[in-house]
Amino acid sequence: MLSMNELIQQLQDIKEASSEVTKVPGAKTIYLGAGWFSEQQIDTLIASYKALNNNPTISYVHVPLLNQFEGQAFDENGDFEPDFKWAVATYNADITAIQNSDVTLGVITAGNEDSGTAFELGYANALGRPTVAFYDGDWVANPINLMPAIGPSSYVRSTDELATFDFMSIATRIYDGKII
Amino acid sequence: MLSMNELIQQLQDIKEASSEVTKVPGAKTIYLGAGWFSEQQIDTLIASYKALNNNPTISYVHVPLLNQFEGQAFDENGDFEPDFKWAVATYNADITAIQNSDVTLGVITAGNEDSGTAFELGYANALGRPTVAFYDGDWVANPINLMPAIGPSSYVRSTDELATFDFMSIATRIYDGKII
Amino acid sequence: MLSMNELIQQLQDIKEASSEVTKVPGAKTIYLGAGWFSEQQIDTLIASYKALNNNPTISYVHVPLLNQFEGQAFDENGDFEPDFKWAVATYNADITAIQNSDVTLGVITAGNEDSGTAFELGYANALGRPTVAFYDGDWVANPINLMPAIGPSSYVRSTDELATFDFMSIATRIYDGKII
Amino acid sequence: MLSMNELIQQLQDIKEASSEVTKVPGAKTIYLGAGWFSEQQIDTLIASYKALNNNPTISYVHVPLLNQFEGQAFDENGDFEPDFKWAVATYNADITAIQNSDVTLGVITAGNEDSGTAFELGYANALGRPTVAFYDGDWVANPINLMPAIGPSSYVRSTDELATFDFMSIATRIYDGKII
Amino acid sequence: MLSMNELIQQLQDIKEASSEVTKVPGAKTIYLGAGWFSEQQIDTLIASYKALNNNPTISYVHVPLLNQFEGQAFDENGDFEPDFKWAVATYNADITAIQNSDVTLGVITAGNEDSGTAFELGYANALGRPTVAFYDGDWVANPINLMPAIGPSSYVRSTDELATFDFMSIATRIYDGKII
Amino acid sequence: MLSMNELIQQLQDIKEASSEVTKVPGAKTIYLGAGWFSEQQIDTLIASYKALNNNPTISYVHVPLLNQFEGQAFDENGDFEPDFKWAVATYNADITAIQNSDVTLGVITAGNEDSGTAFELGYANALGRPTVAFYDGDWVANPINLMPAIGPSSYVRSTDELATFDFMSIATRIYDGKII
Repeated sequence: MLSMNELIQQLQDIKEASSEVTKVPGAKTIYLGAGWFSEQQIDTLIASYKALNNNPTISYVHVPLLNQFEGQAFDENGDFEPDFKWAVATYNADITAIQNSDVTLGVITAGNEDSGTAFELGYANALGRPTVAFYDGDWVANPINLMPAIGPSSYVRSTDELATFDFMSIATRIYDGKII
Repeated sequence: MLSMNELIQQLQDIKEASSEVTKVPGAKTIYLGAGWFSEQQIDTLIASYKALNNNPTISYVHVPLLNQFEGQAFDENGDFEPDFKWAVATYNADITAIQNSDVTLGVITAGNEDSGTAFELGYANALGRPTVAFYDGDWVANPINLMPAIGPSSYVRSTDELATFDFMSIATRIYDGKII
Repeated sequence: MLSMNELIQQLQDIKEASSEVTKVPGAKTIYLGAGWFSEQQIDTLIASYKALNNNPTISYVHVPLLNQFEGQAFDENGDFEPDFKWAVATYNADITAIQNSDVTLGVITAGNEDSGTAFELGYANALGRPTVAFYDGDWVANPINLMPAIGPSSYVRSTDELATFDFMSIATRIYDGKII
Repeated sequence: MLSMNELIQQLQDIKEASSEVTKVPGAKTIYLGAGWFSEQQIDTLIASYKALNNNPTISYVHVPLLNQFEGQAFDENGDFEPDFKWAVATYNADITAIQNSDVTLGVITAGNEDSGTAFELGYANALGRPTVAFYDGDWVANPINLMPAIGPSSYVRSTDELATFDFMSIATRIYDGKII
Repeated sequence: MLSMNELIQQLQDIKEASSEVTKVPGAKTIYLGAGWFSEQQIDTLIASYKALNNNPTISYVHVPLLNQFEGQAFDENGDFEPDFKWAVATYNADITAIQNSDVTLGVITAGNEDSGTAFELGYANALGRPTVAFYDGDWVANPINLMPAIGPSSYVRSTDELATFDFMSIATRIYDGKII
Repeated sequence: MLSMNELIQQLQDIKEASSEVTKVPGAKTIYLGAGWFSEQQIDTLIASYKALNNNPTISYVHVPLLNQFEGQAFDENGDFEPDFKWAVATYNADITAIQNSDVTLGVITAGNEDSGTAFELGYANALGRPTVAFYDGDWVANPINLMPAIGPSSYVRSTDELATFDFMSIATRIYDGKII
């Protein structure tokens, strides 16, 4: 598994590499809500970040990992012990970033839904901002919870779709997986 | 009267023709709420779309007719019978588009106010987004309802005004027509 | 047709007569959005006001007609000529009343939808307040516009239903009429 | 484990038994977000419902299980296969209930956080409604996700606390568990 | 000048004394935003609290001074040095109380406007809650800032008015003082 | 002290001079809330406007002074006597501009906090928009009120910071001054 520093480096490289992509007028800023606590999550995060940076309808991608309070990223394997100050500052940074983005994308992994991402989708939803879920994994074998299944404005099923999704005029889609 | 396909084609031609217009930095995205069910409404829709696409303070215009669920546009003269699924998906698409736009424009025709456009103006208003009404027709002979008359942030009276309206800093205007 | 003073008197009598109805704990306040410009509208307004005042889950009904700015009610048949000050104060009074109510009820008359009521339903909707539509008339012969058809949290079809509707836990209903 | 019908019966009995509790003026309505898919969840749901019904600052408790669309409750062990219509109606019913409640309570089980409840807490939060988390279980052994840990307005740690919590003036509390 | 403990005692006595006042069904909860840092402010706070507790349309008054985090009230004359934790908890408590109240009242003293109260009025306003300003002092000699002058839903000029103001149906009023 | 016309001219010159600055994709629009009623306030306004126009993450700066209703700017030293119509139109213009901006910046002067700017920060905050405070002056000698101290998403302490602040991903900062 990548170390956190390697992961951060990869994300920065992706951003730089995409600087030549031509963006449409009025292209959207987006919040990318996703975990980085398993190999699968890291792979999905990297692929999503790359897809969004190359999407001509996206002008800027905010990824929490690149914007941690005082540079202290949360590392499950380290012995970082966050205190109240860090927790409040980091929570506020995430909320501010959602408020500062046109659209919120949340990665919902079937069978292993991240409660933080679900909270963020609910938050963006009530804020009156478009939300797009990326349902990762097998949603028939592992049904998705009703709220993140029906709440988002639309959804994609793969990082390939993310690269070409039209964020200027978000098409609604009928949810087609299983529900729990 | 234009067929729906001819209308869609005209709108797409307008968009393409305007692609060379230089936009100011930070130019706004806008939702164009208007009907297409009478000759007058179609004329107004085409002229408004053209004006907005040529306005240097507008980067993108969302028009519901070009973004119908599964390409099924509502056609009053056809025999399209929408079911619950289509209705929910299309309603959600319109709401998502309002949430995805910086500004909402609603065409209010004196004497023939569209209740759907009024709903959208009220929605955008409570969402805390700037709203601009385009009062079409004679507002002295046919007074406008109090809510769409006073609710919007500002208004225009003609498509000429729409082409040059400054959406970067929306000037308020005193309502000057009759009220019902 | 009732004169406005007679109408106001009737509404006040209804309120007084209902003061003995026992209300459930936490009973809701409601905004009653409806016109009073035709005999049918007046009949519906009176019957709705009576039903809501007798509903045990409703503690208070706000009806704009009883709360006009400086007592000047709008009278279509009179020669009242509202100025900007009256218009702003009355618009603000209606918006404040929606904000001051737990639930917003809007009477949507099939074939004759009031744009002001549609605006209010959209406004309450985006404010994050429950909305209930009362679809008056024949929604098959006269289809309802998509936005007020699908937007409200729930609906009723008659004043009888209004008298017993459970506003503590609002049940959703599938829209079953025609849509335009 | 209780059958669903037995569970529903128990909840209704609790409500009836509490009808003699005197409530303070202005007592709050509350949405009780919690799962019913394991023995522990069912025990917590019953105890929370009882505590809230007996709390003098709570006038009404909405519990989704007692308000399912067309009486079809979701039963993990049954073979109920929800379709799109059921899913939309049930999602809307939950959202409407949150909008119809003064306060939202969400049960967050350490080590087994329900993504639907997290979505609801985020939603209520952005709607500008007070939220209270009930952190069930051992939050040191099983850290809580940052968003539901810091987002809620306040929290309790036991059903005993729920019975006496002052919902009229919600005291903030410093989060004191572990965070993931 | 009263000591803080004496002030707190007086407020509690007022609440108790008013417990026999009959409240109308659906009576409102209110947030009372006001300072306690000068003799005039203390007098106004006491008189306002008394008036609101005796108002039949008000069921509950939240006053921040009676709900400080961990009982530590801010005392300008003491040597209380708040830290970040206290500041966040107290700020959140005030915001939660506004979100937990139907209406927000803010005391704006002509010539000495409290920026915290102005912030709270703006906050409640954008939250879509009715706001009432109590303009204390001489608004001709000491004009009020445009934002707190025009923003609130309505206003009163004296504590006498507060005791009888109808919070069930808030009447709008035209601002009649000077503006800066 | 500059005359108002000279001030307006200087602001327009600054805007023109900055037209060559390259902006990042998705750069933000910002509302600049600040007074112009003392030499210090004017200096801060000019320096802030210059810094923001040169900041590559800002595409457009709305400054109320350049967008007064019918060109009538408020001049403390003149004898301009605003009426209700002017007041409503100007209040609405400021609110519309906040709603039309991605971010709201408010200048809070220690010891002399402007209540209008505090109202605007509270408003933008509840609207769910990122807010940045510019704490001008000595916040140890002159403590800042709790609400504008803790409410904003982040803050700066100087116009130099404003020129380079990253508005794409707003970093939270722990408040470090005194509080009143």
